Amino acid sequence: MEVTREDVERAATLIAGRVRRTPLYEAAPGLLLKLEGHQHAGSFKTRGAFNRILSAGRLPDAGIIAASGGNHGVAVAYAARALGVRAEIFVPEVCAPVKVAGLRALDAQVTQTGAIFAEAYEASAKRAAETGALEVHAYDQPEVVAGQGTVGLEILEQAREAGGVDTILVAVGGGGLVGGIVAAVAGTVKVVAVEPERIPTLHEALARGGGPVQVEVSGVAADALGASKIGRIGLGIVREAGVRAVLVGDDAIVRARAELWRDHRIAAEHAGAAALAALRSGAYVPDPGERVAVLICGANTDPSTLG
Amino acid sequence: MEVTREDVERAATLIAGRVRRTPLYEAAPGLLLKLEGHQHAGSFKTRGAFNRILSAGRLPDAGIIAASGGNHGVAVAYAARALGVRAEIFVPEVCAPVKVAGLRALDAQVTQTGAIFAEAYEASAKRAAETGALEVHAYDQPEVVAGQGTVGLEILEQAREAGGVDTILVAVGGGGLVGGIVAAVAGTVKVVAVEPERIPTLHEALARGGGPVQVEVSGVAADALGASKIGRIGLGIVREAGVRAVLVGDDAIVRARAELWRDHRIAAEHAGAAALAALRSGAYVPDPGERVAVLICGANTDPSTLG
Repeated sequence: MEVTREDVERAATLIAGRVRRTPLYEAAPGLLLKLEGHQHAGSFKTRGAFNRILSAGRLPDAGIIAASGGNHGVAVAYAARALGVRAEIFVPEVCAPVKVAGLRALDAQVTQTGAIFAEAYEASAKRAAETGALEVHAYDQPEVVAGQGTVGLEILEQAREAGGVDTILVAVGGGGLVGGIVAAVAGTVKVVAVEPERIPTLHEALARGGGPVQVEVSGVAADALGASKIGRIGLGIVREAGVRAVLVGDDAIVRARAELWRDHRIAAEHAGAAALAALRSGAYVPDPGERVAVLICGANTDPSTLG
Repeated sequence: MEVTREDVERAATLIAGRVRRTPLYEAAPGLLLKLEGHQHAGSFKTRGAFNRILSAGRLPDAGIIAASGGNHGVAVAYAARALGVRAEIFVPEVCAPVKVAGLRALDAQVTQTGAIFAEAYEASAKRAAETGALEVHAYDQPEVVAGQGTVGLEILEQAREAGGVDTILVAVGGGGLVGGIVAAVAGTVKVVAVEPERIPTLHEALARGGGPVQVEVSGVAADALGASKIGRIGLGIVREAGVRAVLVGDDAIVRARAELWRDHRIAAEHAGAAALAALRSGAYVPDPGERVAVLICGANTDPSTLG
């Protein structure tokens, strides 16, 4: 595997004290919830951002650069500010003003360019080549994948004190999170990858048997899981480990998110509810007595839409 | 003390499996958050309700009766439904229709009577005398206090795995929660009682040196901390243990609640943010290195007011 358990353990040491050890608890018999929405900047992305930046050693004067109008951008801006380095974030022109303002509030320099994310990303890569800034990719860098994997290590450790865990359900966007978690727990706990039906980047790639495949992106979780192709690293790990991938519809995601608020008072973005949706929709059916950890991976959502 | 650590330990055994062991985690260095808003029915009240009902042994045919248009009513209705017994809840006429609907959705029989809570309570007590239903008081019964105290036992146990705890900050309404927690942790961890300036029931009683004193009730946390006098049991425990009590203004509560959402994506009702407000306003200043657990005691709030 391109990222190993040792890489994830090194990441955990490197980012310790920079990220929160978010809570895991048994919300119902056999159902463990890992509340990663309480992470700094509201999602797991902060882990990968810190690991990528701190792994680089001495940073270029031009600082950090990333492309994302979503969780990744906020996480990179947060991490850069915490470390006292410059961050330049490229977002597509359609990026909501409130998100641009959020990035600027974190002292990031924001450049709006391109009609779609891929164009903003190209512009950021070009800019990085000019300035020498350190690129932090949203998912397809080993340090980013290893950083995201630290959430898997925590689940293993915390579940030991909470009755154990057999299976981890995790949402898939670019595959950095699932790749890192599989690397972290490989051989000890089963991981199930959950994709929205309308963003099946992993399914398409697994079905075709080759590299990442471009897919159409739509649906309620597109703001956070909307990579139009899976990352090469995550795909490689998932394929090598034989991870099972399941699909969930938008209706199931919406219902799971509503359940999290109604029955648990947990705020989750749609992507953050996708893993629970797999359980509730029957896309993944645990065996009797199987203990399942559901990763609530992000909470960057408009709270007025929770009720 | 009228409620002892042994009472709380018995309660914990009795209600195990009925209530959630809610998460505690280190949100910032030395700051532990106990997320009791994730409890069934959205607050700690579910603990006391279950302990009172399960302690009664065989229940009367008339079932359970309680007076509350807030967290206590919802908790009693939830517990009664979970146990398959009837619940009759008395609420004042001013109770918001959405809360009445919420109680009915939990299969409770709702009676709206009286201009203020005290009148609804009197009516419920009269009704209980007629029907023989088991009264579940919002705070002033030993079984209720002992049940609430189980959250204190959990904080002790969980903090052991999270680096330890020196002090617990807890909001005060009728005093059932603080009384139970002091009973649970007495002699091992310091407890600080936090009251809104506009509902100083504990302060007034402590200042005057006698029993519970009637106070004017107002402010942002009145929906959950709005008992117009402290309970006799809680007051006795707090006084005997020499618990320090501090006051927080509404502004501080509002700011703490906003911080919980903005920096942690934690949904809290105003009462649930009062304990953090004591820390942020300087009403309680920890010593260097002191590890403080802040109890977020409830999350029954309109999420559209979080942002």
